Amino acid sequence: MPESMHGGDIYSYEREYGEKPLDFSSNINPLRMQKAVLAALCEAAIHADCYPDPHSTSLCRKLAQFEQVAQDWVLCSGGAADLIYRIVYAYRPKRALLLAPSFSEYEAALRAGKCRIQFARLEATEQFQLTEAFLEELTSGYDILFLCNPNNPTGQIIPANLMEKIVKKCRENQILLVVDECFLDFSEHFQELTVKKYLQNNPYLIVLKAFTKTFALAGARLGYILCSNRDLLEQIAAAGQPWPVSTLAQAAGEAALQNAAEYLEKTRKYLKREREFLRYGLTCCGYKVFESHANYLFFLAQDTQLVQKMRQEGILIRGCENYRGLGPGYYRIAIRRHEDNIKLLGAFERI
Amino acid sequence: MPESMHGGDIYSYEREYGEKPLDFSSNINPLRMQKAVLAALCEAAIHADCYPDPHSTSLCRKLAQFEQVAQDWVLCSGGAADLIYRIVYAYRPKRALLLAPSFSEYEAALRAGKCRIQFARLEATEQFQLTEAFLEELTSGYDILFLCNPNNPTGQIIPANLMEKIVKKCRENQILLVVDECFLDFSEHFQELTVKKYLQNNPYLIVLKAFTKTFALAGARLGYILCSNRDLLEQIAAAGQPWPVSTLAQAAGEAALQNAAEYLEKTRKYLKREREFLRYGLTCCGYKVFESHANYLFFLAQDTQLVQKMRQEGILIRGCENYRGLGPGYYRIAIRRHEDNIKLLGAFERI
Repeated sequence: MPESMHGGDIYSYEREYGEKPLDFSSNINPLRMQKAVLAALCEAAIHADCYPDPHSTSLCRKLAQFEQVAQDWVLCSGGAADLIYRIVYAYRPKRALLLAPSFSEYEAALRAGKCRIQFARLEATEQFQLTEAFLEELTSGYDILFLCNPNNPTGQIIPANLMEKIVKKCRENQILLVVDECFLDFSEHFQELTVKKYLQNNPYLIVLKAFTKTFALAGARLGYILCSNRDLLEQIAAAGQPWPVSTLAQAAGEAALQNAAEYLEKTRKYLKREREFLRYGLTCCGYKVFESHANYLFFLAQDTQLVQKMRQEGILIRGCENYRGLGPGYYRIAIRRHEDNIKLLGAFERI
Repeated sequence: MPESMHGGDIYSYEREYGEKPLDFSSNINPLRMQKAVLAALCEAAIHADCYPDPHSTSLCRKLAQFEQVAQDWVLCSGGAADLIYRIVYAYRPKRALLLAPSFSEYEAALRAGKCRIQFARLEATEQFQLTEAFLEELTSGYDILFLCNPNNPTGQIIPANLMEKIVKKCRENQILLVVDECFLDFSEHFQELTVKKYLQNNPYLIVLKAFTKTFALAGARLGYILCSNRDLLEQIAAAGQPWPVSTLAQAAGEAALQNAAEYLEKTRKYLKREREFLRYGLTCCGYKVFESHANYLFFLAQDTQLVQKMRQEGILIRGCENYRGLGPGYYRIAIRRHEDNIKLLGAFERI
């Protein structure tokens, strides 16, 4: 198998060193799994011998309440990444527009679907922010556009007024716009920034989300999309296996939503404090740290060997040189618990 | 969402009746989940906040031992059904040959991949058995052939000498042969019937298996393929998301293999006895019961309303009229524990 393009590979580290690393390379909610979710997983384990509900009916109902959308706009699957492939296989786009840098699975899925891809580059000189100039790229020559908001790995958001114009222009030009909001609930401005409000009567808009990061459920595999285009949702459902969400993931998802508002509010407060703490600490190390609205920080360092050096300190960080549009010296680190963040800064100072 | 094409939908029954049915419509190992598997699921739940190992490395090593193949011939994913779609998306066949009746997901996946499909009909007059005449169908006009052995829903096996000829002819004509052996470990003749022995040096052969039925793990979503064509395996891995197997499913799979030989031997003995018991009982009800090598029985009844009638008795059975090549009156029932099988026969006698 080719080398992983992603963070979170604690397994090869463990095989090499015989112990678990401190993982700053994957972006999981620092408050980690709620206790009720763990309990739900264990309870659901008893039923792991039965096929799961193929439609995740009960979970979809709770998700519709949580997201304040109609229940038949919700489709669950085995992680956001799974849905990216399903969207591509169902919609069969011929030409796609992507940002660079951004999450690599959009490109991987489009390549698997033999789609031609154009890249709109985000510039370091503009802090990797999307600007109004991007609107001119949105011509009818494209079938699909993936946007990640906040963007991975940069942590930058797309301002609400620009996003509104993008949604409008995509619709006019019949470009299917997939907005990946997997990290949006970590931002204080999640309500203002979400494109959920544009879903109604818009057949060219999909919102992509997951329990992976928001609820620290990466290992259970659970993602979902919101879309008011029922025909498209059915095609996406038919583009893969009929049982994409395990019995355990469905139960975990339902349990995670039980106390979601409070948990996420606490998360956002925690992140706000730790984001500033880590940003200050990294800046003191001499790194150029970009502003972030997510649960990770993106920075530029003179040293291009930070991944290897930190690995020897027992810490995984995400080197970003293999992101399209980036080069050596760019890194991404998750914001973890305060005590872990102190260890991270200590290690950065040592090396 | 469209109505499910599959058995095991205990959820819509539960919503309607407020209690769980006795499910004979899905084919799960009657010995159900091993205790060690349940324990492994609960233990793994603690780690559900971390991304799973994308390559299921440890599980693949154990699977290679269990299946007696090279470790790099094994690819795991989230259920056999997921792998069917991945194979189609990776291989992109233009023309496929399928049997009718057989498992419906081959057709569904091929249709999702816009592949043209020809059907070779299995005839009731021949007990739905595949015969030597089938060899003449295997021309170079086809890119892919799916065979299910034992076949779902009929329970019929493909004799070893015929299968050997099919493997040979597919290879000669460069037809990718996917042999679904998801039910084969339930047959006493599993060693003689498996095509694993033809994998070596054959780039046109894939064996498809799952933990779903064999180890009663339908709810966890775990399947795998065996194939000596490394390039093809990598394409199949790249045709979907990078984390297809949850942390929990990987742990459950490893635990299931710990004591696999003994558990499966016990399963086969149990099934042999109960298969005869149920077959005799159903025959006494006036049904024409076909011979079976799997953990289910396939039969023909005069009464075309058995599904609805049994549902009112609190029992789900699988009506097979929506299988291509079958009509009203065909049914499939799982072989369950003896006490449940008695209840089933009692209900058949009452209605």
